[in-house]
Amino acid sequence: MQMVCLPRLSRVAVCGGTHGNELSGVYLVRELLKVKKGVMEKEEEQEEEEPLSVLKVLSNPRAMQQCRRYVDTDLNRCFTHATLNGLTSGTVPYEMIRSRELNAMLGPKGRSGAVDLVCDLHNTTANMGLCLIAYSDCDWICLHIFRHLQRKMPDIPMRYIHFEVSNKESYSLDSVGKHGFAMEIGPQPHGVVRSNVYTAMKAGVQHMLDWVCFFNSGTLFEGESVDVFTMIKHIDYPRDSETRNITAAVHPHLQDRDFCPLHPEDPLFQTFSGETLRYKGNEPLYPFFINECAYYEKGIALSLARKRRVVIPTIRVQTEQEQAAHVQELASEEEE
Amino acid sequence: MQMVCLPRLSRVAVCGGTHGNELSGVYLVRELLKVKKGVMEKEEEQEEEEPLSVLKVLSNPRAMQQCRRYVDTDLNRCFTHATLNGLTSGTVPYEMIRSRELNAMLGPKGRSGAVDLVCDLHNTTANMGLCLIAYSDCDWICLHIFRHLQRKMPDIPMRYIHFEVSNKESYSLDSVGKHGFAMEIGPQPHGVVRSNVYTAMKAGVQHMLDWVCFFNSGTLFEGESVDVFTMIKHIDYPRDSETRNITAAVHPHLQDRDFCPLHPEDPLFQTFSGETLRYKGNEPLYPFFINECAYYEKGIALSLARKRRVVIPTIRVQTEQEQAAHVQELASEEEE
Repeated sequence: MQMVCLPRLSRVAVCGGTHGNELSGVYLVRELLKVKKGVMEKEEEQEEEEPLSVLKVLSNPRAMQQCRRYVDTDLNRCFTHATLNGLTSGTVPYEMIRSRELNAMLGPKGRSGAVDLVCDLHNTTANMGLCLIAYSDCDWICLHIFRHLQRKMPDIPMRYIHFEVSNKESYSLDSVGKHGFAMEIGPQPHGVVRSNVYTAMKAGVQHMLDWVCFFNSGTLFEGESVDVFTMIKHIDYPRDSETRNITAAVHPHLQDRDFCPLHPEDPLFQTFSGETLRYKGNEPLYPFFINECAYYEKGIALSLARKRRVVIPTIRVQTEQEQAAHVQELASEEEE
Repeated sequence: MQMVCLPRLSRVAVCGGTHGNELSGVYLVRELLKVKKGVMEKEEEQEEEEPLSVLKVLSNPRAMQQCRRYVDTDLNRCFTHATLNGLTSGTVPYEMIRSRELNAMLGPKGRSGAVDLVCDLHNTTANMGLCLIAYSDCDWICLHIFRHLQRKMPDIPMRYIHFEVSNKESYSLDSVGKHGFAMEIGPQPHGVVRSNVYTAMKAGVQHMLDWVCFFNSGTLFEGESVDVFTMIKHIDYPRDSETRNITAAVHPHLQDRDFCPLHPEDPLFQTFSGETLRYKGNEPLYPFFINECAYYEKGIALSLARKRRVVIPTIRVQTEQEQAAHVQELASEEEE
């Protein structure tokens, strides 16, 4: 099996409160900020090399203060190249200003100065367990971290979700790092913190940081295969053509069945008058984000994915010589 | 056993959206408003007497539009005599104006013109099943309706909660009617509608209206006994003394265990650093509204109740002669 050597991950960002009412991440990052030399960074003390730098970021403090997803617009849609670099005029939404601040702090997106890894913490009202959501199905760092978490947390249902979007078009905070993913855990109502969800997120972040330390210190991670769920399409609620109000809820047979295959003719919605509406697709797909609170306004009742096995190679960190050559390579790329 | 004769219930109000993000009630009342001559009122067609008038009210349309609990202040705290009747000056919060509109429509509170029964529909993020919440433990109408629902919906955990507050101090919309209760169903995240919760609420409202029709048409309801949970006190989250941020979540052993007895020294909270905090009361009590989203800002992590058996008498509707005498009696009371 091939072996891939990848650059050291020197700077990792752990972000919470990108959505101000997703409270596990808010309270976890607050806790990490308190713990200056605590459990979360004990590895670095054991290292003789340059320690790992972990930036802890509360992404949307204004939304957090109001315990709302956002104040003016969804911050986690503000990190496309266009939004970060476009001209602004008139009254600029708060989150557009904040996305530029975060890009200055953790990016610039797509450039060599960006942090090596962004882990952005999210919650969902959907019964999704712990998911890593990323824009790549061939980012070996993200995929190996995922496998590490799966092994370390066998009691938590865990999936890797892939949104097939180019780096330029990618819109979320985690796209600012060289590598990045959202760590999404549910079910938890927005505006609520459930101890079990908080604890799972804390463990997930700890194992992620552990993995980065192992990787940096030269550990070789064996290749293997991973199930990847690639998002295919969204399905909206049935709506009244005039008022745009929804006219049905997710069917009770589908509710909470995230990642269980949905077959053609399976129940999809139950109208408020009691009628069952069925899935009219022509292939079985895997539903997720079923009945996520924040997606009512986005017109998404659930998303559908195709599952595929991805073979990931054995990886290890680059030696210092390899790293030096790599840096030079990147620099000349950026000059172009 | 004693028999109590009570006035006919001619006007019933079913209210949803008192909290704009508690969606079961919002969508149920919208559905009822659509169904002009549908299932919900078929009884009245069979009656030869004066039909039952069912008012369907969307209580807080502005909050519903924004899918928030309220716009300026919690509408369901605006129905005290003081708030309804006090002088206002300056900028009046929207919900204060709206509470007076609703009092004009369904009340006036405490007067003979008020509707006979208000059923106000609510959702909670707590695992409370279906609860009727009322200010009285001797309102035989509410208690008999409760028993009827319990019998008709044996699969739904159901409790009667009593807040010991005088009519003058009672603050919620249901206090405007001659009889009234909140029908509270959970768990459901605010901003989300779950089909099973919606369906339970729809059945609850249907059975409540059925009961009123049975009662009005002379059915005798046998006396029996009912468990009543009387609210004793609230417990807040542990908080940081400076920031007032919470420093712990409800303990995983307590989360979702609404109405299971909480004993002294049982786990109560788990701090964000992992420590267990225990219940320091000196008697077992029954927790409810455990980790309700909307109560973080009110400083309530859970409420505690004492359970008691209440004997309710046999009741039937007053005959026309009894009713006439009763109306005269009320009128002379109001003149005083």
